[in-house]
Amino acid sequence: MKILSINTENNSLKFSLFDMKDESIITSGLFDRIGLEGSNYTIKYNGEKISQEIEVIDYNDVVRILLEKLIDLEIIKTLDEIDGVGHRIVQGNDKFVESMIIHEDLLKELEGMNNFLSLNNSYNILGIRAFMKYLPNTVMVAVFDTAFHQTMDEEAFLYSVPYKWYKEYGVRKYGFYGTAHKYATNSLKSVLGKENFKLISCYLDMNGSVTAIKNMKSVDTSTGFTALSGIMGGTRSGDIDSSIIPYVMEKEGKNVGEIIDDLNRNSGLLGLSEFSSDMREIISKCDEGDEKALLTRSKYVRRVVDYIAQYYVLLGGVDAISFSGVLGENSVPLRREICEKLACLGIEIDLDANSKMGEQVKISSNSSSVDVYVLPVNEELMIAQETVNKIKNR
Amino acid sequence: MKILSINTENNSLKFSLFDMKDESIITSGLFDRIGLEGSNYTIKYNGEKISQEIEVIDYNDVVRILLEKLIDLEIIKTLDEIDGVGHRIVQGNDKFVESMIIHEDLLKELEGMNNFLSLNNSYNILGIRAFMKYLPNTVMVAVFDTAFHQTMDEEAFLYSVPYKWYKEYGVRKYGFYGTAHKYATNSLKSVLGKENFKLISCYLDMNGSVTAIKNMKSVDTSTGFTALSGIMGGTRSGDIDSSIIPYVMEKEGKNVGEIIDDLNRNSGLLGLSEFSSDMREIISKCDEGDEKALLTRSKYVRRVVDYIAQYYVLLGGVDAISFSGVLGENSVPLRREICEKLACLGIEIDLDANSKMGEQVKISSNSSSVDVYVLPVNEELMIAQETVNKIKNR
Repeated sequence: MKILSINTENNSLKFSLFDMKDESIITSGLFDRIGLEGSNYTIKYNGEKISQEIEVIDYNDVVRILLEKLIDLEIIKTLDEIDGVGHRIVQGNDKFVESMIIHEDLLKELEGMNNFLSLNNSYNILGIRAFMKYLPNTVMVAVFDTAFHQTMDEEAFLYSVPYKWYKEYGVRKYGFYGTAHKYATNSLKSVLGKENFKLISCYLDMNGSVTAIKNMKSVDTSTGFTALSGIMGGTRSGDIDSSIIPYVMEKEGKNVGEIIDDLNRNSGLLGLSEFSSDMREIISKCDEGDEKALLTRSKYVRRVVDYIAQYYVLLGGVDAISFSGVLGENSVPLRREICEKLACLGIEIDLDANSKMGEQVKISSNSSSVDVYVLPVNEELMIAQETVNKIKNR
Repeated sequence: MKILSINTENNSLKFSLFDMKDESIITSGLFDRIGLEGSNYTIKYNGEKISQEIEVIDYNDVVRILLEKLIDLEIIKTLDEIDGVGHRIVQGNDKFVESMIIHEDLLKELEGMNNFLSLNNSYNILGIRAFMKYLPNTVMVAVFDTAFHQTMDEEAFLYSVPYKWYKEYGVRKYGFYGTAHKYATNSLKSVLGKENFKLISCYLDMNGSVTAIKNMKSVDTSTGFTALSGIMGGTRSGDIDSSIIPYVMEKEGKNVGEIIDDLNRNSGLLGLSEFSSDMREIISKCDEGDEKALLTRSKYVRRVVDYIAQYYVLLGGVDAISFSGVLGENSVPLRREICEKLACLGIEIDLDANSKMGEQVKISSNSSSVDVYVLPVNEELMIAQETVNKIKNR
């Protein structure tokens, strides 16, 4: 069974084609700057990387070219070989608690969704419509970033704002990066050979979040109504005092949308360090003793530790803490710093084990009160797996 | 030495006259609805309570009447008996790290303060100017709500927003309710007979905050740029996802100021419960099994516990946790619920000891890993004490 896994964002489309027999990647790639000058694609296949500038106006062009290339490069013989396409959808609201087979009614519902994040979804939907045009008979599945978190209870997902805002406008915590946290949870299930465990999953990527998980279910998470809140991101502020917004609006003569934009695009690591949104660059500056870099790194670590502490107590102690995402899987110094700050909970890191990068490994010492793992996450594969499940259970 | 302690807010002025020989209250009272219809005052003296409607246009009228009453009621013989007046100031910025003797330059600086909270200060300043008019030769001292927290380091007080917002506009965490937290810290110092301890101080009042204290100094606190962030208040939201603001602006056709107003005045306990901003009313509805009341109480407890957990790890374990403020000092069920949620940290409550209300008492059991105290706070006395200190060290 061959499954395409698709992640469409503003001006870009990432794809991976999996052979689900052994979950291996057949080919993967990226279409970038869609509709802008310098549109291009990169396709990885058979150990080679093919890149080319192209002219594409919209997602229809992209999907047409992608499918042509799959045939031209003899990756597949006919389009019928694609058994299903899984699409990442950012915002599934509280209506979609699991992945869904896509049909016209579902798309209509997503398009009409009364939500701040409908902008993100709109790119996802353009991608879906393009695939439906060129693969009209192929099963499509929507995999929601928010679905995994829909097990949170009211106490977790409600804000202490006028209740009407929830009832009438849907203001509540939705939680994001759910696919990644679900992947990490499944990995730990394989490691432990059981489902009844308490886990704090730290998905530390360009952006990311921390999630409290009990018996395979999300109990609370650091992102909220949108992915702006919670820990810092590369350019996202995470939690702030809301009163800052009108204050800076007046200072800078900006409107509220422009300030929210600043909080999404000019804050986080970039805002504090003033030189980079990339933690690798910040860490390398730390080694030179750069004060801004040191401050930015320690602030990032502090915010992750704040959430681990909250969720440790919320869950009444935990069996495991896991690190995933580009930073979680690869940043040896960040993992060490985070674990060292948790010493008062009896958590102890094994420095040798922690020196590994990008692989599944237990990094806590044998005397640690809590097991700490690196659990690499493959969101694209997770989307393909969800797609297969939906196809099988149709 | 007799000291007046003054707290001026929008349309109200609270006063207490202390005899600092034994720190006893000679008289206290409230002028309410200043400048509005139904202005009135209440003065407590000698076990009696005198209330009267009056016509007052501004704080000058209030201070004139107050001083006349002190003479008329023979509480003092002449105004010279008042040795000093301590004034509560909400926002002292990062410039005022301790209480200050008031002079014209200081007032000018406060009036010119480039800050979102200058509105709160403006009422404080009107009160000060009125007292300076009628007691021109009496020493006045400004006691800042923010001063105690100015020991926070950059990692604690900076937000992950564009650094320019801090450098140019002063966007940072200031922290509030400092006078209350300082009072609790001083009380614990008396109990323990030492200054080197780690304390999480929970000041749970109509509004309130949680503060991490190490060796008598504030290390971090739950309020931020304003007192809107942090735990829930009676009508304040505490932390939310900032993206909610533009979303609800659009839904309700309101401007940003109106939404911030909703977050300050229509949120918190009132917003979530939809019937009361008073925790006592909410708790009594809980006893009837009211679902909204139960949700509101458990959400309040959760947010306090979230901050205790964060600060427990931040401080690397603590010697004590304390409860102060109207709720902290009197709400037996809230204290029990909070402590029970902390069981995984080895914290254990003594239910007998916890049944006491409004008095200084240790409420943790002998086997608890952390000592938990109720430490009643008297902000008015603290303001008077600060005033005496400043007068003596002039």
